Amino acid sequence: MILEIKDLLAEQEIARLRDIASATKFVDGRASNVGYGEKQNLQADPSDANAAEASKIVTGALMRSRQFADFAFPKRLLPPMLARYTPGMKYGPHADAALLATPTGPLRSDISATVFLNPPESYEGGELVLHLGARAMPIKFAAGAAVLYPSTTLHEVAPVRSGERLVAITFIESFVADEADRDVLFELGEISALEGNNVHPVNRMRLEVVRQNLTRRWSGR
Amino acid sequence: MILEIKDLLAEQEIARLRDIASATKFVDGRASNVGYGEKQNLQADPSDANAAEASKIVTGALMRSRQFADFAFPKRLLPPMLARYTPGMKYGPHADAALLATPTGPLRSDISATVFLNPPESYEGGELVLHLGARAMPIKFAAGAAVLYPSTTLHEVAPVRSGERLVAITFIESFVADEADRDVLFELGEISALEGNNVHPVNRMRLEVVRQNLTRRWSGR
Amino acid sequence: MILEIKDLLAEQEIARLRDIASATKFVDGRASNVGYGEKQNLQADPSDANAAEASKIVTGALMRSRQFADFAFPKRLLPPMLARYTPGMKYGPHADAALLATPTGPLRSDISATVFLNPPESYEGGELVLHLGARAMPIKFAAGAAVLYPSTTLHEVAPVRSGERLVAITFIESFVADEADRDVLFELGEISALEGNNVHPVNRMRLEVVRQNLTRRWSGR
Amino acid sequence: MILEIKDLLAEQEIARLRDIASATKFVDGRASNVGYGEKQNLQADPSDANAAEASKIVTGALMRSRQFADFAFPKRLLPPMLARYTPGMKYGPHADAALLATPTGPLRSDISATVFLNPPESYEGGELVLHLGARAMPIKFAAGAAVLYPSTTLHEVAPVRSGERLVAITFIESFVADEADRDVLFELGEISALEGNNVHPVNRMRLEVVRQNLTRRWSGR
Amino acid sequence: MILEIKDLLAEQEIARLRDIASATKFVDGRASNVGYGEKQNLQADPSDANAAEASKIVTGALMRSRQFADFAFPKRLLPPMLARYTPGMKYGPHADAALLATPTGPLRSDISATVFLNPPESYEGGELVLHLGARAMPIKFAAGAAVLYPSTTLHEVAPVRSGERLVAITFIESFVADEADRDVLFELGEISALEGNNVHPVNRMRLEVVRQNLTRRWSGR
Amino acid sequence: MILEIKDLLAEQEIARLRDIASATKFVDGRASNVGYGEKQNLQADPSDANAAEASKIVTGALMRSRQFADFAFPKRLLPPMLARYTPGMKYGPHADAALLATPTGPLRSDISATVFLNPPESYEGGELVLHLGARAMPIKFAAGAAVLYPSTTLHEVAPVRSGERLVAITFIESFVADEADRDVLFELGEISALEGNNVHPVNRMRLEVVRQNLTRRWSGR
Repeated sequence: MILEIKDLLAEQEIARLRDIASATKFVDGRASNVGYGEKQNLQADPSDANAAEASKIVTGALMRSRQFADFAFPKRLLPPMLARYTPGMKYGPHADAALLATPTGPLRSDISATVFLNPPESYEGGELVLHLGARAMPIKFAAGAAVLYPSTTLHEVAPVRSGERLVAITFIESFVADEADRDVLFELGEISALEGNNVHPVNRMRLEVVRQNLTRRWSGR
Repeated sequence: MILEIKDLLAEQEIARLRDIASATKFVDGRASNVGYGEKQNLQADPSDANAAEASKIVTGALMRSRQFADFAFPKRLLPPMLARYTPGMKYGPHADAALLATPTGPLRSDISATVFLNPPESYEGGELVLHLGARAMPIKFAAGAAVLYPSTTLHEVAPVRSGERLVAITFIESFVADEADRDVLFELGEISALEGNNVHPVNRMRLEVVRQNLTRRWSGR
Repeated sequence: MILEIKDLLAEQEIARLRDIASATKFVDGRASNVGYGEKQNLQADPSDANAAEASKIVTGALMRSRQFADFAFPKRLLPPMLARYTPGMKYGPHADAALLATPTGPLRSDISATVFLNPPESYEGGELVLHLGARAMPIKFAAGAAVLYPSTTLHEVAPVRSGERLVAITFIESFVADEADRDVLFELGEISALEGNNVHPVNRMRLEVVRQNLTRRWSGR
Repeated sequence: MILEIKDLLAEQEIARLRDIASATKFVDGRASNVGYGEKQNLQADPSDANAAEASKIVTGALMRSRQFADFAFPKRLLPPMLARYTPGMKYGPHADAALLATPTGPLRSDISATVFLNPPESYEGGELVLHLGARAMPIKFAAGAAVLYPSTTLHEVAPVRSGERLVAITFIESFVADEADRDVLFELGEISALEGNNVHPVNRMRLEVVRQNLTRRWSGR
Repeated sequence: MILEIKDLLAEQEIARLRDIASATKFVDGRASNVGYGEKQNLQADPSDANAAEASKIVTGALMRSRQFADFAFPKRLLPPMLARYTPGMKYGPHADAALLATPTGPLRSDISATVFLNPPESYEGGELVLHLGARAMPIKFAAGAAVLYPSTTLHEVAPVRSGERLVAITFIESFVADEADRDVLFELGEISALEGNNVHPVNRMRLEVVRQNLTRRWSGR
Repeated sequence: MILEIKDLLAEQEIARLRDIASATKFVDGRASNVGYGEKQNLQADPSDANAAEASKIVTGALMRSRQFADFAFPKRLLPPMLARYTPGMKYGPHADAALLATPTGPLRSDISATVFLNPPESYEGGELVLHLGARAMPIKFAAGAAVLYPSTTLHEVAPVRSGERLVAITFIESFVADEADRDVLFELGEISALEGNNVHPVNRMRLEVVRQNLTRRWSGR
């Protein structure tokens, strides 16, 4: 399942991230290649002090989002990185690597996330394109919105034709490794959140027992 | 989970089964031993024409029961057999065999069922005792009621002290082989059946999608 | 993964199926409801002799398709049914049922298929819409083409606004029940088919061993 | 499976825990709600220095118990907490939450444990009631004894009618997440411990190989 | 695990199979290729009436063998075929196909079997060579003996240098699809068979419960 | 699968390890028994400062080996230990324990490794013998070579008849716990490494996506 989180970032967070982006050194994205496609982009130099502040803002926004928690069951995430695509840049079709090196040992990438920082009308091209077999799904959300998709998905960033694509990206290791498992838990969580008070307390509790027991079964195994 | 189905059999079915029992030849139960404990009981001779009628009555009652369908997800069942325990008879602790021979190939016994045919007050002892570790659970239901329990359960029939324990027993191969899986599906089915009209149609449909997708995932794999 | 099979049907098969459709009695689709959404369509009366011929044509086309075999690992399929949507008709969001009744016992629906019989420009609306979380994917292929998608997918048929949507639909039980497993096997099969002669025979054989061993592991378990 | 550990605590440990309980501040149990039922009890204030000593005593007793090790395969446990139920208090039906917050990250609760600190004859009501479908199993063990049960179990604490129910509770993350897996390993361990010297050394070793290989397979996956 | 069954065939069965082999038409083995290696051998023409008698003899011998039952948990097997390798013939490295066509639908090949019909000293070369990574294991058993190995194993038949390699081969679909699962059950079965009377009846029954419950869990899923 | 890594150690590393062995105190191997067989050998005293240097040399050699990485998917490993067998010493049949105590908590032993430090012609006997059912596989590699095998394998060290068997041994917890899973990933990795440039970049990328997605699925679950 593919999740859109609208308004993940507040207006002032978007503004601050854009300021950081203009004051930060960017380096060739191939330096930190986590996938296998033809990659032509720029990424914030992780040794630049600004990179840490940007990471912290995006991490904080994800961590306060109920949708993120219910969808991702996050265990750990790679510090979010700023990435920039100027005209002609792209990232060819690829799937993200399974195990990403981190200072505290490899992180298994279960879910990939892109947070959009520029308004879609300010650049042409640059869609995140998810390949789902017969059909491709192009995605270009509003500034401050995020898209989350399974790291198993073949995807690419289409060439930017004008303007600048500025995003933050991260990779999440989930307590619930399997996509289909997470989908079931997300649905049960949404139904419970939306209908909680409409159902008899006994049945609400029974539904909660099912949800907890499936979470238990699918966590960390 | 252990299920009681009250009033599985109608009054006239109970009466007919008791009549059949008194007109049928019973043989030493060890002839068709499907478990591993010390077995001392009598079972209806399967070559007796009456045995087929008894099987048919009990099978029909199970097949028309919604609780049975929602709990057992039945794929095949062994023809139900009449069993009789007179004073002194018992069936020591055992678990039922995994694969039972049938004319159409081995049947995997996932769920075991006992249908009680005599009133509990008409015989002393003869409880079906389920061993669940620290504690044992003795079961003796009304005539016409059935108990279903996972075939993995260590269990025994306590010695009959007076009167006669008359039951029908059968073993069910389920589409959903795993007990914990069946428990989840049963709960979702009950919640849906009890609360269906209280929730918004969209969420009712979402719950149904979850239930169907879990059934699909856990069926026949 | 979602598969498009172009030119599944030959021209004369399309023509014959349209002829059959015009000569066959159609009944309210709710009579054979296999899903849970709001259903407003017409389906060929299965007791009409023409229905059997239509089934046979579509089954034959699927069975001769290498793409179908490599994607679906078909074990059994429900006899394909003709369905017709005239203006105003639709099938609301739903997922297909897990277990479908057939004369030879329940069939587990792993993959759902729609074969398009009318040209897309001959009717407005009537798209098959797959819901994949954040985004919906509308599908309307050429006459004679088929789309296959996991039966777990929430989907709907959008209301027809003009013209007639004529399709054949079927449900497939696969040897390989899990979607992610089938995706891996499909990819390995495609790579092997496309690159076979480019690689050293020893490595070609090693790849085939992997493919056979994964098929074995994931088949019928 | 449900395990009773008799004499988990020594006499002086029981006495010390009761002394601690009378000297410790108790707060409303809803402050640390790890389940979903209607909760009316008191729990030792974790910021009270006494709470740490009580935790340490109970943890030590569990860690020296061979039965605990063979049944639970403990990886981590939540610091045991003292809980008190005075007349009228209860904890309605619920299942324990799957993931419990701890200072070192979420702990998956696989097994729940209750250690009884007051003699059963000193209070009326207050049974731990496990719901296993058709039948409930009420549990009230001797002071110093513990009961362990899968955290998946729907359970409740019946209202206390007189006297005081004083217990310590904890939640265990197991190397072996699945209940049925743990049951198999526990049985093989018990058989091996009880029969070790009766069997030929080669077969004893073969049994040990099976036990180690199943432990390996089911650990931490 | 690799199993040798000594004396699978009685002397007169070996003699009869050799007589059949000399009276039967053999055809190029590539006609019924079930693997992927370079195959140069001869197989009995399945349309020859003798082939059916040979199949029946070998099937009967397997079915009466307790070792075969305990190791293979056979569900179905392909009719055994006679194969002959004369000097220069061989079957290059390959693994057996996962799904084999049969008149009653595809059979999943879980276990492969070779029954040796000529004495090893009567031909040079012709070893069945199992490749297990770093090391190869050459196998050439006595006439009447059989070797069973997982169909996942990369293997070959080394070139025959003199004499004639005459064997019967078959492929078995097991109730227990996974090799590691079968190994555990085989070990528990052997321990139980060898030590049964040395252990206390209660523990013998507990071991049997474990064995039945694991068989149930791993059968047909 | 069983892997041989030739030339794991450089000449000077072998020499240094032999020097360390002669300068280090060895103690009875039963002091650190991680298996269950009859053990008669000597192991370097872990409290001897030399033991740490030897561990470091062997760990470094494993960590720089691409074959080790592709075969073992190492998460953690027990510090390698020197072991010495003089004439008459042996280690009877056993399988390694599933969970090994370490200062940072139990390590699950998925793969066992032996690094040979003396030339095979310098001692008689002392083979590592892997038992694979019908046949045993004796292993005695060159000085500086290593053998890796699944910790599930029943194995022994044959009695040394003359000379000295000097080895380093270690146990590896893998990201990919299951042997069959690791075998598939190793094969895909080898094919990709050997054939990478021969195949079309799109198919190379598709193969890489399969490999990453299977690694993801099988890692740490």
